Amino acid sequence: MNASTTAAERAATGRTTAITNIATLVTNDPSLGEGPLGLIQDAAVVLDGDRVAWIGTTSKAPATDSHVDAGGRAGIPGFVDSHSHLVFGGDRTAEFNARMSGRAYSAGGIRTTVAATRAATDEQLHANVAKYLAEALRQGTTTLETKSGYGLNVEDEARALRIAAAHTDEVTFLGAHIVSPDYADDPAGYVDLVTGPMLDACAPHARWIDVFCEQGAFDGDQARTILTAGKAKGLLPRVHANQLHHGPGVQIAVELDAASADHCTHLDAADIDALANSATVATLLPGAEFSTRARWPDARPLLDAGATVALSTDCNPGSSFTSSMPFCIALAVRDMKMTPDEAVWAATAGGAAALRRTDVGRLTPGARADLALLDAPSHVHLAYRPGVPLVSDVWHRGVRV
Amino acid sequence: MNASTTAAERAATGRTTAITNIATLVTNDPSLGEGPLGLIQDAAVVLDGDRVAWIGTTSKAPATDSHVDAGGRAGIPGFVDSHSHLVFGGDRTAEFNARMSGRAYSAGGIRTTVAATRAATDEQLHANVAKYLAEALRQGTTTLETKSGYGLNVEDEARALRIAAAHTDEVTFLGAHIVSPDYADDPAGYVDLVTGPMLDACAPHARWIDVFCEQGAFDGDQARTILTAGKAKGLLPRVHANQLHHGPGVQIAVELDAASADHCTHLDAADIDALANSATVATLLPGAEFSTRARWPDARPLLDAGATVALSTDCNPGSSFTSSMPFCIALAVRDMKMTPDEAVWAATAGGAAALRRTDVGRLTPGARADLALLDAPSHVHLAYRPGVPLVSDVWHRGVRV
Ligand SMILES: [Zn+2]
Ligand SMILES: [Zn+2]
Repeated sequence: MNASTTAAERAATGRTTAITNIATLVTNDPSLGEGPLGLIQDAAVVLDGDRVAWIGTTSKAPATDSHVDAGGRAGIPGFVDSHSHLVFGGDRTAEFNARMSGRAYSAGGIRTTVAATRAATDEQLHANVAKYLAEALRQGTTTLETKSGYGLNVEDEARALRIAAAHTDEVTFLGAHIVSPDYADDPAGYVDLVTGPMLDACAPHARWIDVFCEQGAFDGDQARTILTAGKAKGLLPRVHANQLHHGPGVQIAVELDAASADHCTHLDAADIDALANSATVATLLPGAEFSTRARWPDARPLLDAGATVALSTDCNPGSSFTSSMPFCIALAVRDMKMTPDEAVWAATAGGAAALRRTDVGRLTPGARADLALLDAPSHVHLAYRPGVPLVSDVWHRGVRV
Repeated sequence: MNASTTAAERAATGRTTAITNIATLVTNDPSLGEGPLGLIQDAAVVLDGDRVAWIGTTSKAPATDSHVDAGGRAGIPGFVDSHSHLVFGGDRTAEFNARMSGRAYSAGGIRTTVAATRAATDEQLHANVAKYLAEALRQGTTTLETKSGYGLNVEDEARALRIAAAHTDEVTFLGAHIVSPDYADDPAGYVDLVTGPMLDACAPHARWIDVFCEQGAFDGDQARTILTAGKAKGLLPRVHANQLHHGPGVQIAVELDAASADHCTHLDAADIDALANSATVATLLPGAEFSTRARWPDARPLLDAGATVALSTDCNPGSSFTSSMPFCIALAVRDMKMTPDEAVWAATAGGAAALRRTDVGRLTPGARADLALLDAPSHVHLAYRPGVPLVSDVWHRGVRV
């Protein structure tokens, strides 16, 4: 999402734009409004170029070059989806259909997508990322992280990151997604590759390094080795942790000051305590549990302990093929014991925290001009009206989508 | 949904339209294609006015006045949503928010909406129905039943039905939603009203009569009395049955040849047997279980016994405020043990059966020209990509929406 306001667009729309008559605005700035969400009733937002210039009530809005009447719709910061896997080739419809129909299917899992991704052209991969990024943007997602992890050799991992970086600033090197099929008999050799030549080729194209720390993928020692090597090259760590089983992922994430421990489905009291006493965000990905009929993560003990919780889609063709942050909010409220307010915060400010960003995920003067209007009077409707495409207007970097 | 093709629209679009390059088309006609869904690959549909004129493969499509290239998208019959409650006033956001946030709230339930509906103007109620009908249409729903049931006196029930009938042909008299607050101490008196003056005032505006047969609403004897009175006035029965507890609703539905027993969450073996050996459809409403965190109905024993199963939204502001049939499909697959094929059939042909219609819910020559294209290569993606607004184009009575 590298689109920026062009001179022509500014000339066409005026430099400053006021969006008025927002029935309820979520700012996520408690100094601007009520409660943790900083709610303002009958609000207005003034955009100046790609930044928010002013926030307040409609009656006090300053004069601007152009004007949009929200007509009593609710407003929220654009969603920050801090976890997706969009650089992939192929499709796993048949595997999904068989799993959900109770039919046997010799699923290759991630390996299926690795083969299809390696076989895809650059153009196909660019088109794929662009398609799902546009789909997410229409649904209100204005910041989106995405990863490599379906290349699993030096050339294809570096290619994936170059392609991702053409579409978003939040790019993660996930060479350690699974042990590459090329090293099936030599996992130690694959860790050497990931921390050596692959890291050298990939680090220039990424901001983050990630490891799938899980039985059958990478153990705690391997995860620590890989993340530490990435940090030495200037990458910031994040971890796929405690998704399918309890394991050391969350503790390693906290130990290495990872921005986020993602999934957090299987936690013990020590994990919750570690997250609550760290800057590591617990990112929950309910689309994965939905699509694989797995046990839900429980947000309540994390929130009650004071941990920061984010929600994200995990959008990928195998285990969570949704790009919908509103859907994740509805699941979090129904099945993960989050309140509607907590879920909306987690999908915006929480995602920003999971990317160590303060310029997105909130609407406050100086923040990026990323916001969505809902065809509903409040943000609560994102949970109250599950499945309904409520996002009716989106501004991204000040440009109306 | 009384829109019909005007002469001007026909002149503008040509009388016949071919939609070609449909990657996978669901016809629900096994004689036209593969399996129970009558699937055709690389399909084309020719529309003539408000009817389907021809179905086959793109390479064999006849010449037409106009042409739309589906570009490899999937096609399905428009959804048939056979159960909604759209004639309501007010909003129950605060009640929903409190329930999902674990806060105490003195919820009036249906009574809250009854008071708001009685207080609403005709114009407000028309606007409300039109809003949600349009929202449903954008999501691919081209036939939608809706009910009274928030008036609960002669005048307001008749008004609700007149308003509903201005928007859809499938109108249901549900004076027996709950005992009217006006008759709180005299439920027998309320049954006399419903079967007497209220029925007289309402029957001319409705096709169906419905009863909420449930503890705290109407018992089996009352339900039988009300439905039988309605049949005597020419209305066809359908029943809210076995939603919150096991009860006599399903057996009464079958006994009276109701078109549908709706909810069916609490069934015993005799209920399943009765449904399987009748023309009464079991309509499952997963939005209600989702939004109230209730136990899921189990579609598997119904399907395995040979019962006809439909899916519908139950769209209403209290217990299921979704208008999204794709969302219901995703839930049915995830949590009600339906395969993606079964769920798509239930949301189209199943809904038509629940309304005793053969002109909708399928794409076959002579059927109504109601179809949706998906931004995906197959109908399976409705479950594979939960929450994503995949419906990208809709034709309703031959008119592109
Ligand atoms: Zn992931
Ligand atoms: Zn109902």
